[in-house]
Amino acid sequence: MSPPAADVDLRGGELFAFLSSPQADTMNFLNEIALRFPDAVSFAAGRPHEGFFSVDLIRRYLDTYTEHLLREYDRDEGRVCQDLLQYGRTKGLIHDMVAKSLSVDEGIEVDPDSIVITVGAQEGLYLVLRALRRTAGDAVLAVQPGYVGLTGAAELVDMPVLPVRGGPRGVDLTDLGDTLRRARTDGLHPRALYLNTDFANPTGHSLSRAAREELLRAAEDSGILLIEDNPYGIFGPERENPPTLKALDRSRRVVYVGSFAKSGFPGARVGYVVADQRVDRDGRHESLADQLARIKSMLTVNTSPIGQAVIGGKLLENGFSMRAANKREIDVYQRNLRQLLDGLAAHFPAGSQPEVTWNSPDGGFFLLLNVPFEAGDDVLERSAREHGVLWTPIHHFYGDGRPRRQIRLSFSHLSPAEIDEGLRRLAGFVRS
Amino acid sequence: MSPPAADVDLRGGELFAFLSSPQADTMNFLNEIALRFPDAVSFAAGRPHEGFFSVDLIRRYLDTYTEHLLREYDRDEGRVCQDLLQYGRTKGLIHDMVAKSLSVDEGIEVDPDSIVITVGAQEGLYLVLRALRRTAGDAVLAVQPGYVGLTGAAELVDMPVLPVRGGPRGVDLTDLGDTLRRARTDGLHPRALYLNTDFANPTGHSLSRAAREELLRAAEDSGILLIEDNPYGIFGPERENPPTLKALDRSRRVVYVGSFAKSGFPGARVGYVVADQRVDRDGRHESLADQLARIKSMLTVNTSPIGQAVIGGKLLENGFSMRAANKREIDVYQRNLRQLLDGLAAHFPAGSQPEVTWNSPDGGFFLLLNVPFEAGDDVLERSAREHGVLWTPIHHFYGDGRPRRQIRLSFSHLSPAEIDEGLRRLAGFVRS
Repeated sequence: MSPPAADVDLRGGELFAFLSSPQADTMNFLNEIALRFPDAVSFAAGRPHEGFFSVDLIRRYLDTYTEHLLREYDRDEGRVCQDLLQYGRTKGLIHDMVAKSLSVDEGIEVDPDSIVITVGAQEGLYLVLRALRRTAGDAVLAVQPGYVGLTGAAELVDMPVLPVRGGPRGVDLTDLGDTLRRARTDGLHPRALYLNTDFANPTGHSLSRAAREELLRAAEDSGILLIEDNPYGIFGPERENPPTLKALDRSRRVVYVGSFAKSGFPGARVGYVVADQRVDRDGRHESLADQLARIKSMLTVNTSPIGQAVIGGKLLENGFSMRAANKREIDVYQRNLRQLLDGLAAHFPAGSQPEVTWNSPDGGFFLLLNVPFEAGDDVLERSAREHGVLWTPIHHFYGDGRPRRQIRLSFSHLSPAEIDEGLRRLAGFVRS
Repeated sequence: MSPPAADVDLRGGELFAFLSSPQADTMNFLNEIALRFPDAVSFAAGRPHEGFFSVDLIRRYLDTYTEHLLREYDRDEGRVCQDLLQYGRTKGLIHDMVAKSLSVDEGIEVDPDSIVITVGAQEGLYLVLRALRRTAGDAVLAVQPGYVGLTGAAELVDMPVLPVRGGPRGVDLTDLGDTLRRARTDGLHPRALYLNTDFANPTGHSLSRAAREELLRAAEDSGILLIEDNPYGIFGPERENPPTLKALDRSRRVVYVGSFAKSGFPGARVGYVVADQRVDRDGRHESLADQLARIKSMLTVNTSPIGQAVIGGKLLENGFSMRAANKREIDVYQRNLRQLLDGLAAHFPAGSQPEVTWNSPDGGFFLLLNVPFEAGDDVLERSAREHGVLWTPIHHFYGDGRPRRQIRLSFSHLSPAEIDEGLRRLAGFVRS
């Protein structure tokens, strides 16, 4: 029952406009749909596999990191206690370890001082967009469909997001050129293009090496930055991925956003930004990282050193390689991917339902399934209620709210039995 | 040596305008000045006393919280592991404990669902201002001098801050009325007044009970909210403080912002907002807390459950009373305050230097010292370099950058010997 109007304290129309838009519910929807249907098999959540998590790991990694500080930096107990429990450096505590990890896992060589440790990659995206947003004309481009958190951060800083077609090559460079030209004709100032380079969310697409080099040249030619967000790169088969954009970047065009939510623990809430761009500031030269730190000091002050220590311990125990730390998890993701692909082929054999097709990424957490109906939130609701299976409608990754005939299937946190049962339910739903 | 212009990647003039303003350095300056002069005695930093901190406490509080989840909620190990290490509820994990703590320590009775756990109070301030900022006309009022973090959060959302005189009563209600009238004449839409009610930063002032009741009536009459930020309330003598504004609030005028940085550990990065205001949203009724959660989902996703567990353990071990948990610390702060007041009286006896005066708060971390010179950053630099003593120029709490004849002395993290030595150096500097 609605309380009478006299009991309303604030009108929605007086608050941040985004809050009363339909898109506002997207991230909460994605976070909480699993809670609404606890008995459904969920191909929706992009959570990491938790089979190897344990509370004891928190203690162990804290101990490992603490002993490292005592031994390596010759710190006394009191100083270590300060490091973990007091206010700390805005740019973070484990920046040197993150730099080593980038070198070991990605061949990215950066000065640790150009790294800002953030409260997850999401805060990193906010910091980058807030720094780049000077006037109402500043815009960010984003490969679509793409991560909804980029749109969220852009909304918070009132920055328009201009979609660029992705497609199986990962980014459509012709459309990028067209979008840049149109934006400038419209009086906008395009600042950067956001994308996932490897096993992208939600498509599973990766850029080829040639596409990466072309994209870097296009960014240089057009004077925009590339915001490379790469949470899934390590979750592939053992052969080498093509180098990240940042590893190929010779002219500081790439701002690299990293996450330890998939490779470490989501609950640590630790991510980072590599921002080695040189900024002219009243005749002095500073790094973009230092500008991000100024913003961070007004937003979250610093990232919890306890969370950083847990991630630091995990890096220390694995020679700074998150790829090594996740060997068992990578096996799980690869097994789940094969099982999902095999199961799709079994449930939808060639020719049986020509409108049901899917892509076959090499790794990551996601793939795309084309379906013979517009897959909106109402359809998902019915799928969950009547068939006990959850997935993510693709329109959430476009931000325009228009349902499409495509859904995202996540396979990262399911067991083989759940994948089998989920596919059985999904096939039943698709045929219903 | 400056690199040549060709090596610049971004021009400061193309970035968020605040970054090239002199005020941008303020929070970094306050965070980092102690690092620049490691041998100086620092009356500058507002850090909590760390004498009772230990790394073992992190482990112990984690254990206490974990056992509580297992026992109280009958959760199995796997579920507890999920709670601590996976993605979690946007509004937080320990909201029920925070509600109990508010009841025990402050006599504030709120529905736990109206609480959002945040990455420190600073994120809480950002969320509240972002929610209230719809158009360029929306403005926030703030008692000045006041906490620089409010100004920072307002800058991030492009919201003007209108100063309201504080004075020894804590807030000048006549000036509040004048400021509101002037703002409306100027076409602005004042949304809220920000203040610390107890032992305010930087003044040490507290509002009397009568002033609190008058302020609540003024807020109701003028249709603004009160943002009550109360990190220092528990750090007073044992007698009762007047109730907080939120405890006296009968019409949901008060948004209460809390911090565990002083009462728990800064390194946990846990704060919270109580936002029980009812919001009309397209005919539905939601709480302001739910709007803040929507914004948070786009900013930091959720607050580290590991940090929350550490604070949760501390609350559990102390009957949900942070006042009880900080009994020893409160004794230290009270001892330090007496010693600072006695030392000031000894170094500046009545009549010897009539321009050197100070106030005598009952508690908190800070007091104000009036000095016979304009105390700008350059003067502070000289004090640190030549006399080995740090303090905070008051202009940092005004945001206009104009030096005044007043400084903030913080006494929270010093030992008795440091206070004595610091005062000796400070007296030498003031007389120089």
